[in-house]
Amino acid sequence: MSGHPDGPGLPLVIDTDTAADDCFALLVGLLDPRADLRAITMVAGNVGFDQQVENAFLTLELAGRAGQVPVHRGARQPLVQPWISAEEVHGDGAGGLRRTGDDRPDAEPAQDALVRLAEQHAGELTVVAIGPLTNLALAVRRDPAFASRVRELVVMGGSLNGRGNVTPAAEYNIHVDPEAAQIVLDAGFPSIRFVTWDPLSLQHAVFDAGRIERIRRLGTPLGDFFVRANQASFDFDVAMGVGGSVHCDTLAVLLALDPALAEVERRYDVAVELAGTHTRGATVFDWHAPRGGNATAIERIDGERLFEYVLRLLSR
Amino acid sequence: MSGHPDGPGLPLVIDTDTAADDCFALLVGLLDPRADLRAITMVAGNVGFDQQVENAFLTLELAGRAGQVPVHRGARQPLVQPWISAEEVHGDGAGGLRRTGDDRPDAEPAQDALVRLAEQHAGELTVVAIGPLTNLALAVRRDPAFASRVRELVVMGGSLNGRGNVTPAAEYNIHVDPEAAQIVLDAGFPSIRFVTWDPLSLQHAVFDAGRIERIRRLGTPLGDFFVRANQASFDFDVAMGVGGSVHCDTLAVLLALDPALAEVERRYDVAVELAGTHTRGATVFDWHAPRGGNATAIERIDGERLFEYVLRLLSR
Amino acid sequence: MSGHPDGPGLPLVIDTDTAADDCFALLVGLLDPRADLRAITMVAGNVGFDQQVENAFLTLELAGRAGQVPVHRGARQPLVQPWISAEEVHGDGAGGLRRTGDDRPDAEPAQDALVRLAEQHAGELTVVAIGPLTNLALAVRRDPAFASRVRELVVMGGSLNGRGNVTPAAEYNIHVDPEAAQIVLDAGFPSIRFVTWDPLSLQHAVFDAGRIERIRRLGTPLGDFFVRANQASFDFDVAMGVGGSVHCDTLAVLLALDPALAEVERRYDVAVELAGTHTRGATVFDWHAPRGGNATAIERIDGERLFEYVLRLLSR
Amino acid sequence: MSGHPDGPGLPLVIDTDTAADDCFALLVGLLDPRADLRAITMVAGNVGFDQQVENAFLTLELAGRAGQVPVHRGARQPLVQPWISAEEVHGDGAGGLRRTGDDRPDAEPAQDALVRLAEQHAGELTVVAIGPLTNLALAVRRDPAFASRVRELVVMGGSLNGRGNVTPAAEYNIHVDPEAAQIVLDAGFPSIRFVTWDPLSLQHAVFDAGRIERIRRLGTPLGDFFVRANQASFDFDVAMGVGGSVHCDTLAVLLALDPALAEVERRYDVAVELAGTHTRGATVFDWHAPRGGNATAIERIDGERLFEYVLRLLSR
Ligand SMILES: [Ca+2]
Ligand SMILES: [Ca+2]
Ligand SMILES: [Ca+2]
Ligand SMILES: [Ca+2]
Repeated sequence: MSGHPDGPGLPLVIDTDTAADDCFALLVGLLDPRADLRAITMVAGNVGFDQQVENAFLTLELAGRAGQVPVHRGARQPLVQPWISAEEVHGDGAGGLRRTGDDRPDAEPAQDALVRLAEQHAGELTVVAIGPLTNLALAVRRDPAFASRVRELVVMGGSLNGRGNVTPAAEYNIHVDPEAAQIVLDAGFPSIRFVTWDPLSLQHAVFDAGRIERIRRLGTPLGDFFVRANQASFDFDVAMGVGGSVHCDTLAVLLALDPALAEVERRYDVAVELAGTHTRGATVFDWHAPRGGNATAIERIDGERLFEYVLRLLSR
Repeated sequence: MSGHPDGPGLPLVIDTDTAADDCFALLVGLLDPRADLRAITMVAGNVGFDQQVENAFLTLELAGRAGQVPVHRGARQPLVQPWISAEEVHGDGAGGLRRTGDDRPDAEPAQDALVRLAEQHAGELTVVAIGPLTNLALAVRRDPAFASRVRELVVMGGSLNGRGNVTPAAEYNIHVDPEAAQIVLDAGFPSIRFVTWDPLSLQHAVFDAGRIERIRRLGTPLGDFFVRANQASFDFDVAMGVGGSVHCDTLAVLLALDPALAEVERRYDVAVELAGTHTRGATVFDWHAPRGGNATAIERIDGERLFEYVLRLLSR
Repeated sequence: MSGHPDGPGLPLVIDTDTAADDCFALLVGLLDPRADLRAITMVAGNVGFDQQVENAFLTLELAGRAGQVPVHRGARQPLVQPWISAEEVHGDGAGGLRRTGDDRPDAEPAQDALVRLAEQHAGELTVVAIGPLTNLALAVRRDPAFASRVRELVVMGGSLNGRGNVTPAAEYNIHVDPEAAQIVLDAGFPSIRFVTWDPLSLQHAVFDAGRIERIRRLGTPLGDFFVRANQASFDFDVAMGVGGSVHCDTLAVLLALDPALAEVERRYDVAVELAGTHTRGATVFDWHAPRGGNATAIERIDGERLFEYVLRLLSR
Repeated sequence: MSGHPDGPGLPLVIDTDTAADDCFALLVGLLDPRADLRAITMVAGNVGFDQQVENAFLTLELAGRAGQVPVHRGARQPLVQPWISAEEVHGDGAGGLRRTGDDRPDAEPAQDALVRLAEQHAGELTVVAIGPLTNLALAVRRDPAFASRVRELVVMGGSLNGRGNVTPAAEYNIHVDPEAAQIVLDAGFPSIRFVTWDPLSLQHAVFDAGRIERIRRLGTPLGDFFVRANQASFDFDVAMGVGGSVHCDTLAVLLALDPALAEVERRYDVAVELAGTHTRGATVFDWHAPRGGNATAIERIDGERLFEYVLRLLSR
């Protein structure tokens, strides 16, 4: 039950540091008939780069889409600074599961694939970035026309003048590559929509123990995968004082397919702090938007609808 | 004529950039019998320095305490950077009212008064800082023993990993003198308690039109003063999207007298961003507190209790 | 007519923001029989990007090498920040001269050409970077093996703990793209040698009015070109208090071909200031080299030998 | 031979972190009949604060001026950041020598003494600052009129767009308290003259082994003191590649008394880098001086004349 590569779905690329919630976000792109996922592009982030590639292929297998969507390898480290691991959060990001097939990544680098697909689907391509923005930044610098050809970029990253996670001030995806994030914000994308960590995801995208239990009771292979791959980050987030695991990556892909999920949104001038001693990687959303706004923050979603969607997705 | 200079009140200094809410905060220190206000120290902040001094004397008169509490002039500009006015928020900070008397400020500089009072009331003095922290920082550098002698310092300033007001990332009092704030945080005060702008004051210390109307209906001189001196900042805050005027300074003094008003508080390592391009003056509250904590954030108060207190105070 | 494309010359790429001294540096790469110039790669820098491309083709024509060396277009702006022009220094960088031919740039982007040539000439390729380091940084991020395959990178840029030119603290090439410079320094090139602005070039690579006159008297087409294309920067540098025009780019290419020109050199840990208010783009050469050194600074050359070489080159 | 407290000498304060060259600089202020040294003010710097006070009293004794010039204690730490010791350079700063008397420091804090003396000698007082600028900054903030009343401030500190000593980019006195230095530069002193580390002191104020030997051969108590107290910094500087010990503090005091020693000087806009990752504390001298200049750099002195002066001073 998929077969929409040639269907009327939204041409989509997911740029991902595949571990845990990234896997579930890929499932949305792979299984939702509204999506026509043209490529998965890999970026240095959560866990070791090669492990991330394995996790992407594993997810393709579990979705029954092995061999149908190319996986392109991109930046193995952030633009300027060294890689910052989040393995203490995610473990291997797949709950120890291993794929059975032996598909290989596409030879085309991620930045080239992004540039090519934006050209092929000019004005129609949606990119959902659920890892650090290194690949996007490299595509922007590779082709000055790239950004203008992307219909919409959905970014999971940053906080709306709120708290971070990896530091008090910075969310992981932006903290890992602040320069890349700034490049993307300056690039002239026609539309950037932000799914932030705080407050949006902390308020509306947390799956508590009760929700996880409901997923477990599905008894489906995808449900079992979810519970298993999610365990490490669930435990970590709970230890950090969050009431469950946070499904911001999944939310980002769903929002690309279902914009109406957003109940409130607002336009801002967004900048990334590149120079701070304590705040490097913080996202600063200026509500005055003196430069006219370069991005839109999703400020409220229907979190129950997100959970019900995931439940349905995993029940197949 | 309250007559508690020799009473059992809490020995108190209020360090203030007197305009609007600072005036009301002074009223708490001047009229609440639990307070023994030893000095008012003036610091560069909201409005022109000499206007602030006028506003302090006006408040003394309105409280019926003229001539009973010395007013000491302190820093006319922040420690390192130029002064940043908030006159667009406050106007003159007194609704155009003028005092009738001609008391003069005390000749002793604010930093000297702070050092002297901490020595005289060693282990017993409470300082409530409701302006930029310049005077406090100068007292810290003047006398290495100063901080250790202050029983408690209550600071109105910063945000708890939240939004700012004067910039998206920074609250006014800290933004005006970030270096002073960092000096105070590093000084070894036995207790620093923070009344932050966001979320505490925005959630619990906003007086909306209904509350202002209730104050107006008191028909007392103090109530009339409140409404009039408050008008400019009420209008400004409402235009900024806040639902009324924010009474964080008043809250800070009341918390010094009535610690039980705080329903939730937590210890943090707090640092001030001194180097950021977009975040200079942001306060960063590290919940891991790897250095053991240097300050406590008030995280929830009973806002209704604050308002009822103010109503009673102004009804006399 | 040198005819050494297949000869035993040093496989070489010159990465350039072609204007004035960059043209003369290209002449060295095009005419010196010790060089086997495989590509000219263009980077945003001195003057408008398309003008720079014109200047490169003009230089190829004047050297009699039109059609023999490919010109690859690279980054049209720095990695993170906007482009900073130096047109007030250089004018059009060619003294108003125009080429007669209509050769087109190679379709392969500069970063791809750099990666490909480093692979083809692994361990043998020399790259001389005489503009901002954007293309080099993009090649480093495109292929993690790129840096290790380059035999030597000669960089014209920065100052050895000395003065800048475009700001008091920063030299133009590094100031225009500080992040790119830091990426290059961190990339693991087996050898990076720096030709700095201060003190090296200011002490040993200045052509004063007397030297320019000697070039003019050559009466050759190349000599005439030199004098004409050099006029704007000569005038600018003299107005800035330098005793003539500075030929640091030419020096860099010559040093690649003739390492013995360097009389003193020393290994340093070099870092680029990315965060300073007044010093962004400054190069900091740590003589203690606590990390073992990542680059070598040329500290003295025989300036007379440089001039005599240029005189011979232009006399053909 | 002293007795000029009431003489026609230049009213002078030396602000010092007394160790080694600071001692010799004090000797100039104490023994040169052109100076009327009104106070020695102590600032946190080279070595432990109390040791510095001891070194100042020892120098008073050796100069035969014990009890004649008050020693005022000032800041025991820099304005914002923690103290940075230079004890690895100086040892105790006195070659192990101990004073015999038991004079006590004046009770008046250094900042108060500076403010008072500037008022008493308004328009006539010269201050020579040969340590971090903390005391000067505190005096500036204590009294907004202080700076305007000082005839001339001579600062030993920084580098003229050159190398540092304690870091590649920063000289010790400025690096220890960059915020204080910026405050002083912004304060509106009628005249600030800079004696920089590089190039001025490194080129013209180095005493090599031959010069030290000539001092040793004087056989005088002061000569013996010089050699002994100087040994540690001589050894350190030579190990760092400097050709001898650097007598920049001595030079600064002598320049205050003998302006003609300066052969070249130039006006600059000077700023201190407060935010850099690698350059914090660097002094940036802008030769364009777009704000009209706030300080003058001494660019060349007669180094032989400096040495001959010191030789005469120590021969008494
Ligand atoms: Ca992710
Ligand atoms: Ca206030
Ligand atoms: Ca160039
Ligand atoms: Ca000193």
